[in-house]
Amino acid sequence: MLSYITEHKDRFVSELFDLLRIPSVSADPQFKNDVFACANFVKQSLINAGCDNAEICETAGFPVVYADKIIDPSLPTVLVYGHYDVQPADPYDLWTNPPFEPVIKDGNIYARGSSDDKGQMYMHVKAIEALIAKNELPCNVKFMIEGEEEVGSDNLGIFLKTNKEKLKADVILISDTCIISNDCPSLTVGLRGLSYLQVEVTGPNRDLHSGMYGGAVANPINVLCEMIASLKDADGHITIPGFYDAVSIVSDEERAEMAKAPFDLDDYKKALDLGDVAGEKGYSTNERVSIRPTLDVNGIWGGYIGEGAKTVLPSKAYAKISMRLVPNQQSDAVTALFTKHFEAIAPASVKVKVTPHHGGEPVVTSTQSVAYKAASNAFTEVWGKAPIPTREGGSIPIVALFKTELGLDSILMGFGLNSDAIHSPNEHYGVFNFLKGIETIAEFYKQYKKLRVE
Amino acid sequence: MLSYITEHKDRFVSELFDLLRIPSVSADPQFKNDVFACANFVKQSLINAGCDNAEICETAGFPVVYADKIIDPSLPTVLVYGHYDVQPADPYDLWTNPPFEPVIKDGNIYARGSSDDKGQMYMHVKAIEALIAKNELPCNVKFMIEGEEEVGSDNLGIFLKTNKEKLKADVILISDTCIISNDCPSLTVGLRGLSYLQVEVTGPNRDLHSGMYGGAVANPINVLCEMIASLKDADGHITIPGFYDAVSIVSDEERAEMAKAPFDLDDYKKALDLGDVAGEKGYSTNERVSIRPTLDVNGIWGGYIGEGAKTVLPSKAYAKISMRLVPNQQSDAVTALFTKHFEAIAPASVKVKVTPHHGGEPVVTSTQSVAYKAASNAFTEVWGKAPIPTREGGSIPIVALFKTELGLDSILMGFGLNSDAIHSPNEHYGVFNFLKGIETIAEFYKQYKKLRVE
Repeated sequence: MLSYITEHKDRFVSELFDLLRIPSVSADPQFKNDVFACANFVKQSLINAGCDNAEICETAGFPVVYADKIIDPSLPTVLVYGHYDVQPADPYDLWTNPPFEPVIKDGNIYARGSSDDKGQMYMHVKAIEALIAKNELPCNVKFMIEGEEEVGSDNLGIFLKTNKEKLKADVILISDTCIISNDCPSLTVGLRGLSYLQVEVTGPNRDLHSGMYGGAVANPINVLCEMIASLKDADGHITIPGFYDAVSIVSDEERAEMAKAPFDLDDYKKALDLGDVAGEKGYSTNERVSIRPTLDVNGIWGGYIGEGAKTVLPSKAYAKISMRLVPNQQSDAVTALFTKHFEAIAPASVKVKVTPHHGGEPVVTSTQSVAYKAASNAFTEVWGKAPIPTREGGSIPIVALFKTELGLDSILMGFGLNSDAIHSPNEHYGVFNFLKGIETIAEFYKQYKKLRVE
Repeated sequence: MLSYITEHKDRFVSELFDLLRIPSVSADPQFKNDVFACANFVKQSLINAGCDNAEICETAGFPVVYADKIIDPSLPTVLVYGHYDVQPADPYDLWTNPPFEPVIKDGNIYARGSSDDKGQMYMHVKAIEALIAKNELPCNVKFMIEGEEEVGSDNLGIFLKTNKEKLKADVILISDTCIISNDCPSLTVGLRGLSYLQVEVTGPNRDLHSGMYGGAVANPINVLCEMIASLKDADGHITIPGFYDAVSIVSDEERAEMAKAPFDLDDYKKALDLGDVAGEKGYSTNERVSIRPTLDVNGIWGGYIGEGAKTVLPSKAYAKISMRLVPNQQSDAVTALFTKHFEAIAPASVKVKVTPHHGGEPVVTSTQSVAYKAASNAFTEVWGKAPIPTREGGSIPIVALFKTELGLDSILMGFGLNSDAIHSPNEHYGVFNFLKGIETIAEFYKQYKKLRVE
């Protein structure tokens, strides 16, 4: 397997570059045609890899690309999930190379989507190509690559519901997460959920002169700031009534186990140029981003934001706010709690509107399943080290959906690094990780077949 | 005089339209050439009105337009100040007609600058035209029309310093303020000062994925909101140490006098569609915008503000903040107090930068001067009612400068209305006010000459 990968690695990277050149930004309507073009590219890649039944499955939004290779219906079937859409690339001026013109620098591929998730998704296409080419594919495989992950996978639920037979499998395999480091592989066993919404605060019915009205009319920006500030107390606890009610308490044993993962706070602060970390009192940095929920403003705007000065008391102010959730919080329930609270704390001098955007449920997966063990063995085989089970702070809302709709567990076998700058300017993905990932994925199929047959 | 104005009113309005069509936005570099073009238009208007010595006086920024009509050096001289630059017109989509394509609707001229200050400044040009045409100009007159009022009049101070002889006069006359209503004329005797600055809060050195880092790394938007919220207490008092130290306490007698001005809180709330007014405890709405200082966020931005959702924990967040000042606060001193406080309250998890933008000093003028009495008499003569002396919430920073540099008092004889929507979409100015203003200004010259000679 390694020899096949080594022999073809330049072509693999070159093909990935072609994929990365397509600006498949699902959040921004101006890239609509590119997202569709990207689906076609993925379909053709799967055909080229040797898959059958490749198909662009239309949805109410962007399509799901399906393909499979069924070598023997009596063998186990792995369903690969990934996504071909990417986050918006702005602010463009902070990129050192244009986000859709991939380059390799210092062993890393720089481009939007290189790590999240095109680079990681494409490892699966190339692993299957290698296994088919060498006539060593040990199980059946199905691909389900969607185009709306970065905007909440709104149409995937319907796709799952209406394609249960086609998607029948034994386990789902996903590479859209990180390892701790290239020296310390890990497997993700927990993900946070998400509640994402937009708030609008309206003061006067039109923009006013801040001299003529300032001091007597509520300024919606000041009010929005006060409302946002009040959502956390001095200890970093979220003040929304009932917010923590469903949060499952992680045992001291598990917290002690988690604390063994290598982590250097000084390095962490230095890498981000932070004077200090900040967060909920009583929890470590790793706990704050994994076993605890949080609330972040993802965007805020209002008033005059151009060059120079304008003495305006604006009519409206807006914020995009998201809450990361942990088991057993439920996205819809938290969205409802937020909405009720935000409306309740609005002073009489303003009107507020809360618009839910999208959400996802938190996940914890078992380390005792056959599939988990196969993934663990694959790492041990290829990396020479057993992976540490970790919880990640991000959300892959569809993992909970797969369990509900298809009854399937997911193995979160990602190869990214926290430093990949996903969702940021200068996103990148190690060529080492890309190639090592292909090898590990191929090994997973062998291990999974072996453990299943045992 | 009235007959001349009536005879020429269509031409006066048509000329004003030509002036309003020039997008002389001083804050935005893309309109730079238009601002210069506007200066030329004003110069030509003054020549057409019959003035002499018309001149474009270059500065380090936009020029000052000068012209005069000296009929007899032994007579009193009135120096007219106004400005030909305008506020930015955005948001454009809230205008019912394009901001630089003036139209008349329901007796109002709609265009950016119609009230602030092109429409008001042009009344003076037309009043002098009428007085010269009828051979009735009773005093000498000088015009000083600048192009940087909306960006802080940065270069006017130097212009005053270097042109003291040229600007020698007995009083300054300015129309850049409001009357209470068309049934209740007023003269402005107080203006608030201003300290305008921009703040920048930096969290991590790059945009982060809010799932991977959210909860452990300070979000600069959340922090900025908390810092802004903390600048006022629950009673609406500003918490910056020393902020109120220089504020002069207005006597109960003066407050009682102010309270006599017609004001209907229900109408005020209804006009702005407010559930309630808001502001500093212990003061009325009119007091909050006149005799008390305040702090407003004029703009805020950070993170993802495009369509859809992006789960970003941004590196930076920004706000434009202004404080309106009252006698005897000093702009530079307040800016320094703000900066020191804002830096002091920043948590260790972020870095903050405060950039002063521009400022101006508060003003109170005497109601006992000859010029004030002349203005009052002019209103009584033309409007049939004596004007009420009022304090306005806005700032005309150069009024304090005129006193310091030229030793001259200013008469604030504005004809706008609070409902003119200056600095907002759909700014407008009544044709009634425009024509009545011309008549009142012409009458001022007669009254001033008369009282001076007595």
